Amino acid sequence: MSTIPRNQWYVAAYGREIGHDLFSRTICGESVLFWRTESGDVTAVSDRCVHRRFPLSQAPSRLVDDQVVCGYHGFTYGADGRCVAVPGQTRIPRTARLTSYPVVEQDSFVWIWIGDPARADSTRIPRAPWLDSPDYTTVSGMEPLQARFGLLVDNLLDLSHETYLHGGYIGTPEVAGTPITTEVDEEAGIVYVSRHMDDAECPPFYSKSTGLSGRITRWQDIEYTPPCLYKLHSRIAPVGVLPNADGTDPDAFHVEVVYAITPETENSTHDFWAVARDFALDDESVSDFLRESNRTVVLQDVAALDVLEQVIATEPEGYQELSINIDTGGLAARRMLAAQLAQSADRTAVAGS
Amino acid sequence: MSTIPRNQWYVAAYGREIGHDLFSRTICGESVLFWRTESGDVTAVSDRCVHRRFPLSQAPSRLVDDQVVCGYHGFTYGADGRCVAVPGQTRIPRTARLTSYPVVEQDSFVWIWIGDPARADSTRIPRAPWLDSPDYTTVSGMEPLQARFGLLVDNLLDLSHETYLHGGYIGTPEVAGTPITTEVDEEAGIVYVSRHMDDAECPPFYSKSTGLSGRITRWQDIEYTPPCLYKLHSRIAPVGVLPNADGTDPDAFHVEVVYAITPETENSTHDFWAVARDFALDDESVSDFLRESNRTVVLQDVAALDVLEQVIATEPEGYQELSINIDTGGLAARRMLAAQLAQSADRTAVAGS
Amino acid sequence: MSTIPRNQWYVAAYGREIGHDLFSRTICGESVLFWRTESGDVTAVSDRCVHRRFPLSQAPSRLVDDQVVCGYHGFTYGADGRCVAVPGQTRIPRTARLTSYPVVEQDSFVWIWIGDPARADSTRIPRAPWLDSPDYTTVSGMEPLQARFGLLVDNLLDLSHETYLHGGYIGTPEVAGTPITTEVDEEAGIVYVSRHMDDAECPPFYSKSTGLSGRITRWQDIEYTPPCLYKLHSRIAPVGVLPNADGTDPDAFHVEVVYAITPETENSTHDFWAVARDFALDDESVSDFLRESNRTVVLQDVAALDVLEQVIATEPEGYQELSINIDTGGLAARRMLAAQLAQSADRTAVAGS
Repeated sequence: MSTIPRNQWYVAAYGREIGHDLFSRTICGESVLFWRTESGDVTAVSDRCVHRRFPLSQAPSRLVDDQVVCGYHGFTYGADGRCVAVPGQTRIPRTARLTSYPVVEQDSFVWIWIGDPARADSTRIPRAPWLDSPDYTTVSGMEPLQARFGLLVDNLLDLSHETYLHGGYIGTPEVAGTPITTEVDEEAGIVYVSRHMDDAECPPFYSKSTGLSGRITRWQDIEYTPPCLYKLHSRIAPVGVLPNADGTDPDAFHVEVVYAITPETENSTHDFWAVARDFALDDESVSDFLRESNRTVVLQDVAALDVLEQVIATEPEGYQELSINIDTGGLAARRMLAAQLAQSADRTAVAGS
Repeated sequence: MSTIPRNQWYVAAYGREIGHDLFSRTICGESVLFWRTESGDVTAVSDRCVHRRFPLSQAPSRLVDDQVVCGYHGFTYGADGRCVAVPGQTRIPRTARLTSYPVVEQDSFVWIWIGDPARADSTRIPRAPWLDSPDYTTVSGMEPLQARFGLLVDNLLDLSHETYLHGGYIGTPEVAGTPITTEVDEEAGIVYVSRHMDDAECPPFYSKSTGLSGRITRWQDIEYTPPCLYKLHSRIAPVGVLPNADGTDPDAFHVEVVYAITPETENSTHDFWAVARDFALDDESVSDFLRESNRTVVLQDVAALDVLEQVIATEPEGYQELSINIDTGGLAARRMLAAQLAQSADRTAVAGS
Repeated sequence: MSTIPRNQWYVAAYGREIGHDLFSRTICGESVLFWRTESGDVTAVSDRCVHRRFPLSQAPSRLVDDQVVCGYHGFTYGADGRCVAVPGQTRIPRTARLTSYPVVEQDSFVWIWIGDPARADSTRIPRAPWLDSPDYTTVSGMEPLQARFGLLVDNLLDLSHETYLHGGYIGTPEVAGTPITTEVDEEAGIVYVSRHMDDAECPPFYSKSTGLSGRITRWQDIEYTPPCLYKLHSRIAPVGVLPNADGTDPDAFHVEVVYAITPETENSTHDFWAVARDFALDDESVSDFLRESNRTVVLQDVAALDVLEQVIATEPEGYQELSINIDTGGLAARRMLAAQLAQSADRTAVAGS
């Protein structure tokens, strides 16, 4: 039984990862082949030749102009997945066609639709506009996680772990110590979790990047759109400095931390992370520091979740967990994911009947 | 289907292995966390946080005084397993408690009860008093075995293998050549296997440690208390030298070889071994020689049994074995283990109904 | 469910691999122990002691004259598999006997019968006489393949892949471009696939070995006798040079490429390959070149098929393939293998009832 919702948009890559070369990545258990065509569009097709399942990303398979030639027997496909040549005969079988995936390039990401292409609606892709906005400077990366994506959702929805797992980087005692408020917008499909600390220690991640040296007011406003996009609106200011009545907030530092949580397989995940800031826009040393710090923090999560995946894999069926207030957001996210999963299972059942 | 009897005492560690640090070991498939409290007692609790199953032995989890703090979200537990702090709230859920295991420190070992704690009776733990007696000098160690514990039971109950697998160390032709006698004490739960060689070659293990150079009388008296404790009473003397009528035996050398056979998982085992002698008590060179020799012998077993585990894992269900007289003790041990297993399965069925 | 036909002859080794030493190889999932007896014959028995399944090829097991002594407890067997000694007693149990396999040494190969020995008919072993004929010079080897044997059968029956996977070695555009003819001799149990190219580029494999520099006529005549023996009769001559009416063919170069496709397990294969030529018989540099070239080509296949095995292992049950004209031979071979498999399953069912 899969735990991965289908008929959903997922982040497959950063746009910068895909050029005019064959690029393969497994998304939700499907091996997908990407390349950027000569017209500049990203194309996504199944990475398996229809003939004998040879991976089209595997040498000596290669790209010739905008066609991919299988390295085993030479079956050749266009960017739309249609087969245009086979060995030993001129007739091309009608069914010789690679599965083609809807893709949209937006906010620096390449989004892919996993499921029934007829249901792909690109207006429903959640936005993260800061990532390619000139008003922000962004650092980003992706770390492979050998754990089911649900463990990363749990992790990110409950930031009390910053105090323990990320102490000395982004955690301080106030994070674990401050209660959260949680809201669920069922219609929009969003879970909100907020923690506003009025008088907190400033962790190195923010003190070194902003130059603040005293105690701070620190807001963490999470907005998670299951299954894939997670945004943490982080606001840092000296204690007592609040936004103006008109919503402007010139004396605070704003950091938009974005995660895209993309299942690779049932038990592994692509952990995309980005940190966008509205200050020190041209300061390379701040970029370098935030890139290195956030990557370190992500790798601390990866190490812990890789261990947890191994633990859970050996637990007996129906093992117990104990949830408390800090888990409210995570549990809401689980419910929403379960509903998306049930919906995609229904559709599959209909399709298969 | 497990092959590991529950409701039994097992050796978890040597006492010397456990100090005021987190120490984790898997016993009978259960991950157990140990530490020595400030009062000097060994404590044993489940190595899984009740919140999200994070291992409490995994950094950045840590011991603070006599409490363990989970490295993921900071759940904190006392030595009795009771949770004393959780993040973001002051109320501690009533059920927030780690499984706690009965432990007894005795004869240099830390014994743990695996099963229903209400049934743990520490007076039933079998004894190996030589291991911390001033009248004996002991060398000991533990080697990890990638094989089911039953293969080590088979191995130790049939010492005819010394001639072939341990030739040049402890095996001589007379071991395989001399018939055994076997007795079973069902009530006490002990299998006895004896082999008395009246006129045998002295293997290097004994000639170098005792200084005997000629032929010897060599007695091997095995006493196995399933599932865990195996004792080999080994008596070495010049040919013709026998114990006195009153049981005293001043002209012989006595070596008590003790194994504790503790399942780690269904297919791996902690192979604890100890060699206690009543001669050359203060001679470090004899200790060094016996430690190195016995470890070599154990590693010969480990190599053979690791191979055998791989073989058996690929055998079809119900593969054939052929048993002969030398296997009488091993087969008796298997029957006793099967009875212990059936009993623990019965209890589990009742508990689960 | 096995995919390996039983009651068939398979190539176990080259004769040169087996001397008066214990030699173990897994054939069709069975661990077989070989040695050459003092009389020069190859013997093949089960590589598992009947006592406790210890591998007889595993040190300290050893060969003493023509008997193998188990390294665990000393059970001793003759070349016919009969047990001749056990420890601790003089009576040898009647059933103490290793499975013994029919073997035939022929055409440089050691053939083994996997199945019911009563049905082994050595006259049905397919022949490859060039491999030890004085009229040919042969280079040969074996590469381990981490893929099911059926993938190698597919590979060898459809040589259009030479153009893509082996371009620059043995492939040229004409191989993939020229249609094949396929014939099946059900009675003899042979699949024939032929491709005759009248005017083709000469690939390095043949230009460097024959000295031909211009365009060639190139014939590929495949003869596959499932499950194990594959022969490619390769004829190379200058364009327009044909065999004489009487069948003699003095102006062409003939290369007999032989593969023996022996399943090791369900998902791994022994890929034996040999290249016999009727020219430059004493030219070591030609032998070196052909050995190195063919090994390179085989390793290209191995790399591709190892990948394909991994792909197929993760495909859902009943995944699709698309076959075209070039696959006619491969599909015929699959049908013949399926029939052999059904027949061996029938027999097994009868034997088991």
